Amino acid sequence: MKIIILAFGNFNNSAYKVLFDEFLKRISYKVELKELKLKNSNNLNSELLKNKECELILNNLESDSVLIALDEKGRQFDSVEFAKILNNYQLNSSSKITFVLGGADGLDQKIISKANLVMSLGKMTLPHLMARVVLIEQIYRAQTIIKNHPYHRV
Amino acid sequence: MKIIILAFGNFNNSAYKVLFDEFLKRISYKVELKELKLKNSNNLNSELLKNKECELILNNLESDSVLIALDEKGRQFDSVEFAKILNNYQLNSSSKITFVLGGADGLDQKIISKANLVMSLGKMTLPHLMARVVLIEQIYRAQTIIKNHPYHRV
Repeated sequence: MKIIILAFGNFNNSAYKVLFDEFLKRISYKVELKELKLKNSNNLNSELLKNKECELILNNLESDSVLIALDEKGRQFDSVEFAKILNNYQLNSSSKITFVLGGADGLDQKIISKANLVMSLGKMTLPHLMARVVLIEQIYRAQTIIKNHPYHRV
Repeated sequence: MKIIILAFGNFNNSAYKVLFDEFLKRISYKVELKELKLKNSNNLNSELLKNKECELILNNLESDSVLIALDEKGRQFDSVEFAKILNNYQLNSSSKITFVLGGADGLDQKIISKANLVMSLGKMTLPHLMARVVLIEQIYRAQTIIKNHPYHRV
């Protein structure tokens, strides 16, 4: 199973990248982070920005992939429930799962409607680079839960 | 107002520390991180461990401080609600707020009962060092919300 993370902005050389890479190398799924960047977006209002971001997401979304949108208003799962979700997609022969994280203003409604699942990492607003780190850690944690590895203590 | 964070374990030189310090220096409240360490805890079972941790927390808790316990089963707040909570304590002349994060097995029931507020950062289990970073970022975000600074976009 391949996991694709579509996200706006750029890690550059931040400490977030160090943490992200640390979890990435422990994960046995193939994981690809695609960093998206809108051109000439400075003068757009919030709705137009989300529209443009939506286009860019759709252009980068592989048609045979499950889509999981991350949105504060989505459903929350605990780590064991999240592991079950990933495992079920795998058992049902889904070969690709794409997680999409919105830009500063969140995701366009079109993406929310298209998603197979809309999930939330919690009610608090996280910086977008921190959200990526929380997500990759949960994917790693899910793998340890599925494999019964002691990383996740109940 | 002084904010004290009581937490088990040690940042050492991890990337988590880089992120924590980055938010710390932007916060105008006085914030103190007290890293607690149990001696000879290797052979304790989960209940005994939480008991010993509880003692250590109580020994480090200043008697004139509000106590906020972080626990997965606590109440969740969004970032604006959390800012209101901090602001209200400040307006009510609370001079100290102590946040306490449990060890790997969570907090002893005695601490939960003693706390003025039990809050959760979300349903997912986070590594304890990541929880500190999420907490300090939320404290910084709360400050920007209270001061109407544009860091937090609605």
